[in-house]
Amino acid sequence: MVKTPTFDSVSQDLVRVEQKMRQALETSNKYLTDILFYILDSGGKRIRPALALLATKFGTVNPAEKAIALAAAIEMLHTATLVHDDLIDNSLLRRGKTTINAHWNSGATVLAGDLMFAQAAALAAETQHVRVISLFANTLGIICRGELAQLFAPPWNEQNRTHYYDRIYSKTASLLETAAQSGAILASLPEDQIASLREYGRNLGMAFQLIDDVLDFVGDEHVLGKPVGSDLRQGTVTLPAMYFVQQNPDDELMLRVLNRQEQDPDAIAEVVTRIAQSEAIQTTVDEAREFIRQGKAALHNLPDHPSKDALLSIADFVVEREL
Amino acid sequence: MVKTPTFDSVSQDLVRVEQKMRQALETSNKYLTDILFYILDSGGKRIRPALALLATKFGTVNPAEKAIALAAAIEMLHTATLVHDDLIDNSLLRRGKTTINAHWNSGATVLAGDLMFAQAAALAAETQHVRVISLFANTLGIICRGELAQLFAPPWNEQNRTHYYDRIYSKTASLLETAAQSGAILASLPEDQIASLREYGRNLGMAFQLIDDVLDFVGDEHVLGKPVGSDLRQGTVTLPAMYFVQQNPDDELMLRVLNRQEQDPDAIAEVVTRIAQSEAIQTTVDEAREFIRQGKAALHNLPDHPSKDALLSIADFVVEREL
Repeated sequence: MVKTPTFDSVSQDLVRVEQKMRQALETSNKYLTDILFYILDSGGKRIRPALALLATKFGTVNPAEKAIALAAAIEMLHTATLVHDDLIDNSLLRRGKTTINAHWNSGATVLAGDLMFAQAAALAAETQHVRVISLFANTLGIICRGELAQLFAPPWNEQNRTHYYDRIYSKTASLLETAAQSGAILASLPEDQIASLREYGRNLGMAFQLIDDVLDFVGDEHVLGKPVGSDLRQGTVTLPAMYFVQQNPDDELMLRVLNRQEQDPDAIAEVVTRIAQSEAIQTTVDEAREFIRQGKAALHNLPDHPSKDALLSIADFVVEREL
Repeated sequence: MVKTPTFDSVSQDLVRVEQKMRQALETSNKYLTDILFYILDSGGKRIRPALALLATKFGTVNPAEKAIALAAAIEMLHTATLVHDDLIDNSLLRRGKTTINAHWNSGATVLAGDLMFAQAAALAAETQHVRVISLFANTLGIICRGELAQLFAPPWNEQNRTHYYDRIYSKTASLLETAAQSGAILASLPEDQIASLREYGRNLGMAFQLIDDVLDFVGDEHVLGKPVGSDLRQGTVTLPAMYFVQQNPDDELMLRVLNRQEQDPDAIAEVVTRIAQSEAIQTTVDEAREFIRQGKAALHNLPDHPSKDALLSIADFVVEREL
């Protein structure tokens, strides 16, 4: 198991990002504020704000507070989408903690997510940088369109890998791309370096989601903080499942599960085990490694710098974690 | 009955605003696009974009397309909040048309609203004006905090008129204030004129919501497009109800309805009738007229201009409609 990156060079900044996010969610109602802070505390490894901050270190942001605001905006936007996602999927657990909709009715959950979107927009506006703000708004649009497309997706047997890649770009890679790119823009890097950091972020994001989709089959439930096989149970056909059905076109049980003719939990668990033990996992991991290779290669024209080393090690971590 | 203002001087612009909003909601899925357009078509009198456009006419916006983008951003934000409101209230009708959540599950409705928030932010960013964008983001925050405060409000008998005025400012007046103010900023008006248009917008918004709350008791259901008494049935205590209970402290039926001990539709209808026939209505209308008076007075330092005449007539319309 690879050590979790500690983001050493930006760890002080990340503390300020947490403070900034909390400030943005203060309300006059203590009960409400506590719940909003609980959602923030359910947060993950803060990889998105770390990316944004590391990208800024190749140049200068003046005043430095704007970089903190950008990083907080990125993570706030991410958190807002998770709040609404959990409501839409009716998920009761995320990262081992109960979700907000497990406590609240759907109205309060919708509004908590909306407030986070609003504060994300306000934090982005604090950068005072029109190009960064526009990029940020457009990314939110890409994420929403992707979620809607997934909800109105054609049946699984009319979906191909292009659909899948479009979906994970919208869902995950677009925000990592924007994190790295907007950090670069805010720090006034040359256009070729902005393009490189953007490409790094997109490739990292694609690999990140591929590995997430692999872990949904082979991960440790305690580390995942949710049961394995969640995607399949919710009818979401990810790349490992696509490869499995391609490699095992006559697996009747798999077809019944995909066609939702079979909803028995034991049967779904059996299909999850079959996929977990199949070649489909390695095929998917190999694709993730290829995205990582391309992401690292994109950094070739950035100068030697502690941030560059950090970005390279994050890339390795994303694809090696837990595998 | 007062004639609906036709916004003559900005009617061509308003056609472009509609086109701009539609463009922003185009998706690759025809079914989805049709539903999003249906939501737009359920829109009201477009008073918010008209305000923004009229405010810009006191100065110059270059290129003029930025004024269209601002007006579209304002109305898109308003529409997004309506979509989530209807979901939260579980309303099935708005302006006589079925709401999106009457057709779709809550997940799709959440995402449709989110996409509209995203596109509102993207349209605001098209102004390329940092002050306008910041104002816009902060207004969204005010609206969300207001909605959350309402959801976590104390019991009706611990609420006073300050709570009520805070609530209608957040819910309605803040966006009309921002519409007029941001139009003024974008057109580079002097600061005192920006402040005047802001004050006009806020007062107009307060009056607008007061009259809406009156119409919820005395309006024509066909004009309202929903049954009278909706607020009371949902447990929302508006100013006419506050005045009624103050003027009739011993009305047992009213108290039972407010304490939600009485849920019988006939009993609630009886209370609605009592309020509609009481002095509370006139007291509330008088307060609305006072806001309108202050809003019109705020325009004193703006030059004579067709936009000024239009703003004055909108103010009269808001308080005289249907009464």
